[in-house]
Amino acid sequence: MKDINNGLLRTLYFDTETEELVIIDQTRLPGELVYKRISTARDLYESIKTLALRGAPAIGVGAALGLYACAYRFEDVTAEGFSYSFKKTCEFISSSRPTARDLFYACERMEAACGRGKTVKEKLAELRKESFAIEKENIEVCHSIGSFGEKLLTNGCAVITHCNAGSLCAVEYGTALAPIYEAASNGKKVRVYADETRPLLQGARLTCFELCNAGIDTTLICDNMAAGLMAAGNIDIAIVGCDRVAANGDFANKTGTLSLAVNCAHFGVPFYVAAPSSTVDKSIPNGSAIVIEHRKPEEVTEYFYKDRMSPAEVKVYNPAFDVTPASLVTGYITENGVFNNKEISEFI
Amino acid sequence: MKDINNGLLRTLYFDTETEELVIIDQTRLPGELVYKRISTARDLYESIKTLALRGAPAIGVGAALGLYACAYRFEDVTAEGFSYSFKKTCEFISSSRPTARDLFYACERMEAACGRGKTVKEKLAELRKESFAIEKENIEVCHSIGSFGEKLLTNGCAVITHCNAGSLCAVEYGTALAPIYEAASNGKKVRVYADETRPLLQGARLTCFELCNAGIDTTLICDNMAAGLMAAGNIDIAIVGCDRVAANGDFANKTGTLSLAVNCAHFGVPFYVAAPSSTVDKSIPNGSAIVIEHRKPEEVTEYFYKDRMSPAEVKVYNPAFDVTPASLVTGYITENGVFNNKEISEFI
Repeated sequence: MKDINNGLLRTLYFDTETEELVIIDQTRLPGELVYKRISTARDLYESIKTLALRGAPAIGVGAALGLYACAYRFEDVTAEGFSYSFKKTCEFISSSRPTARDLFYACERMEAACGRGKTVKEKLAELRKESFAIEKENIEVCHSIGSFGEKLLTNGCAVITHCNAGSLCAVEYGTALAPIYEAASNGKKVRVYADETRPLLQGARLTCFELCNAGIDTTLICDNMAAGLMAAGNIDIAIVGCDRVAANGDFANKTGTLSLAVNCAHFGVPFYVAAPSSTVDKSIPNGSAIVIEHRKPEEVTEYFYKDRMSPAEVKVYNPAFDVTPASLVTGYITENGVFNNKEISEFI
Repeated sequence: MKDINNGLLRTLYFDTETEELVIIDQTRLPGELVYKRISTARDLYESIKTLALRGAPAIGVGAALGLYACAYRFEDVTAEGFSYSFKKTCEFISSSRPTARDLFYACERMEAACGRGKTVKEKLAELRKESFAIEKENIEVCHSIGSFGEKLLTNGCAVITHCNAGSLCAVEYGTALAPIYEAASNGKKVRVYADETRPLLQGARLTCFELCNAGIDTTLICDNMAAGLMAAGNIDIAIVGCDRVAANGDFANKTGTLSLAVNCAHFGVPFYVAAPSSTVDKSIPNGSAIVIEHRKPEEVTEYFYKDRMSPAEVKVYNPAFDVTPASLVTGYITENGVFNNKEISEFI
């Protein structure tokens, strides 16, 4: 299906024949490439909750397109009833995951769009337009991040990344991996070390999948091996994605990002965050105000519920994210350029 | 079988009725508690290589007792032939794993013991005596480390550890976990955060198993979550084991130890290494001379060969150990007391 170029897949698209959202079910990768059609709030909520649809930008775009697909099927005949249903649906979808800014941003924009139409027909037209605009903007933002970030990568350099902030986390191209794709398409040879990213192995399953698909030289490591590589001088630069950036530059991203940032600081490796402006939340002064989602123990104790990895009695601590202080960030790669932590809230 | 006290298991013992070494097969934990009898060089080599017998001190003691069990079955009738067979067997067993000092230390001592006997009968008697002495010394060393290390633990404190350096890594009690068992037996409440320790999950499988068995309050985390816990002020002290300590205090331990040490330094958490004197190798000036074993990719890409976790094309980097510089170590807990990195090679 949507193979945009160089083996890069499109993570989601809107099927205009059926007015449905279509996503790659990311829980099935890398074993199977399975698509899932979404046109109900329950399916959209479950897809986000179970990480079938995951990655902050993809969640935002998917939520917008999915909300429109749901609204298209509303049975309300009055504008008031429609608006009420849409508001309730937005609240429900917003509650699927607590950390990523993009989800709330998309829901807020869609609610505002709903308000702009007077009749049900007008509201639907506004929602369709807005969801398509959000999708288009995301594609442009990712390509722009790719262009700015590419300048940080020299021919032959080794990049480390954590989790998946590639094409699979967005519509295409991604955020943290966009500079790598851009560098490759400009003829630079870039080697990538991909943290496997416990517990859900988004690095091993998704980042390795899409980078190998695109022909990028990729080496998988366990998260705890990054320090050893840096100590040996084998890493030139780290680029990660983010779920939410506070006004002071502190940011939340997949658990393990903080440890990587601390190690980069210790070993003198530049540490960059690919941060679309939609992830910047000026309403929170610093990282301590970011709500961290804690997920169920079985993600750690059982590999996809097939193997029990630890005794039944043990307690488990399983935060999905951690917060990295701005002081550990070399720069934020945004669609408007690369900024340091003094500039990030000023220019975004 | 050998349940020494408080639910602590004995990892290995020598069966004097059959003159065989008996070990817990650690590849089967925590699912099954299976014992394995060893009386041939091939079985001993394979048990060490596959990590059925693992943990630096346990490998040392197991190698000594196992070498005696092999020698007991030699068919050589001349002292010369016996010595030659024993030398060859020691060389073979030494080649099973390259990093841990204890293995070589045990083989060297056993070869020296072999040399002390004149006849085959005398040699066998010397080997039996020496292997039993190595076992007894290890038990004493672990209890002594427990006594010295216990003083570092306050009532209610939270300890983080990596990999398994508990009773399962030695004969009983262990090294890094010995202070925890000692504190518990002195009535102190100690909470433990156990790094799961990718790729082979010795923390999740073994440390959690033995700590839960012993009734210690234990929480399992993914390796990459340690930084978040430290940032939140939830960790008071780190204690890890080690496979080899260089003359300057640099030490090799399970991959991920370096990352933990860097994070401890960053967040101001005291970082201790439980280091029996048998792990100190004064012949190497610093950590750069320690040979790091690299293991097969499938340990990372397939969980015990049942599930494929990443695409087939991806390259894998899989060092079993990393080296932590002495500068990141607060202290070395040995059987002779707790030393800093200036003192470690002086007093050991």
